[in-house]
Amino acid sequence: MAERIHPGLSPADRDSRQRGRFITLEGGEGAGKSTQAKRLAHRLEALGLELLLTREPGGTEGAEAIRELIVHGPADRWRPLTELYLFLAARDDHLERAILPALKRGVWVVCDRFADSSRVYQGYAGEVGLETVDALHAPLLVGHEPDLTLLLDLPVEVGMARCSARSSRAGQTAALPDGSTARFEAKDRTYHERVREGFLMLAAREAARFVVIDAAKDEEQVAEAIWRAVTSRFGLAAS
Amino acid sequence: MAERIHPGLSPADRDSRQRGRFITLEGGEGAGKSTQAKRLAHRLEALGLELLLTREPGGTEGAEAIRELIVHGPADRWRPLTELYLFLAARDDHLERAILPALKRGVWVVCDRFADSSRVYQGYAGEVGLETVDALHAPLLVGHEPDLTLLLDLPVEVGMARCSARSSRAGQTAALPDGSTARFEAKDRTYHERVREGFLMLAAREAARFVVIDAAKDEEQVAEAIWRAVTSRFGLAAS
Ligand SMILES: Nc1ncnc2c1ncn2[C@@H]1O[C@H](COP(=O)(O)OP(=O)(O)O)[C@@H](O)[C@H]1O
Ligand SMILES: Nc1ncnc2c1ncn2[C@@H]1O[C@H](COP(=O)(O)OP(=O)(O)O)[C@@H](O)[C@H]1O
Ligand SMILES: [Mg+2]
Ligand SMILES: [Mg+2]
Repeated sequence: MAERIHPGLSPADRDSRQRGRFITLEGGEGAGKSTQAKRLAHRLEALGLELLLTREPGGTEGAEAIRELIVHGPADRWRPLTELYLFLAARDDHLERAILPALKRGVWVVCDRFADSSRVYQGYAGEVGLETVDALHAPLLVGHEPDLTLLLDLPVEVGMARCSARSSRAGQTAALPDGSTARFEAKDRTYHERVREGFLMLAAREAARFVVIDAAKDEEQVAEAIWRAVTSRFGLAAS
Repeated sequence: MAERIHPGLSPADRDSRQRGRFITLEGGEGAGKSTQAKRLAHRLEALGLELLLTREPGGTEGAEAIRELIVHGPADRWRPLTELYLFLAARDDHLERAILPALKRGVWVVCDRFADSSRVYQGYAGEVGLETVDALHAPLLVGHEPDLTLLLDLPVEVGMARCSARSSRAGQTAALPDGSTARFEAKDRTYHERVREGFLMLAAREAARFVVIDAAKDEEQVAEAIWRAVTSRFGLAAS
């Protein structure tokens, strides 16, 4: 295969272009992760980069089979710890069989939710606790944290309003990272405040990996803020 | 419900009979675990004890659904670490929704394979390593280790011969704890030696929980050795 040319890459980055970059989008429901993941993927592709746009839970045949177990059935089908192990099994499959091989081939990966969602939903805001979530992640994640995590942060009521609008527009049921599907509105306000706080706490804990984006702005403005963060982090020509 | 009478229990045990006892059988394929688990269960029931005979992976609706993912598909469907997370999810469901509730009601539990199988197959003899298997088990197992683990120990060639006889007799395919089904003969000898060594090492590490049984003897003799271990451990009248 002929050597690919990456016109958007700075000289420093061109040297290490053998490996792709791993970018995750995190934040509460309705923050705009799925919307912005698509926009970011298209913009990176327009630079001539090879791209994998993926999401969790899922992203590989095995992980999608596990996702079926997670999202179907009644809300109490799994205890929080059981569900966490299922998320970890799905994540390990997704990481080792899709994300890492892609990165190795030079493909850039944009992933809609990843480990930080478990840290927050099952850990910080959930019953399992953050320390346990971190400990259980260790063998699968070591050396494989994202190169950049975009935290789409916004007030809880704005996210809630967007979700209600989304579900009333279509019969879509989004799989929430706590295993529920579209059970967003039923969860209480305090819980969602805690989810927001958890993500912000992780961003402070790993300031070098995270960039916090004001996701309450309109779609264009959020896309621009994300693009500035990505181009500056990876030394891309901000075309 | 009228108070149950446990004629086989010593006075000390009668006082604490509110909680059942948790007994696991471990060892390589063909050691006689399934055979002896049934015999032990019947003998305990004959003392008037309420009994739950169960097995891993499986034992609850959720764990059986996860078992389906583990045992079906090609041998390399899951990486060792992915598979371990699936075993842990199944184990957490089984423990919290079947075993612990039974013990709490005073039911005695006899379980064909449990955590030690993961420690040996994925840990000591597998690619994940024992330390990682122990660390990943910690949140689910803490405080819930079996009261007694019977290690059915026998030379590798004896176990192999019994397995070949079993599978040639019927079309049975037993699910092995490394996720394979009846792939026993294909694995090499060294691996099975390492499995045996791993179980013996665990028995030495937790000498208070384990009793090592010579499983090369005939079925009656093994049953008697198990019965002596159980009656003496729990102060039952060795009727
Ligand atoms: N910046 C924005 N302003 C207003 N609405 C938005 C914005 N970004 C996304 N939306 C809309 O809000 C809803 C949730 O967006 P989505 O991308 O699905 O969020 P998430 O994936 O974080 O749950 C969708 O209907 C989407 O069209
Ligand atoms: N002590 C024994 N001596 C000879 N054969 C035995 C003995 N115990 C069990 N078997 C036979 O060996 C095979 C394996 O026994 P099984 O209980 O299924 O072992 P495991 O569950 O440990 O794999 C079965 O066909 C069983 O009838
Ligand atoms: Mg989404
Ligand atoms: Mg068996």
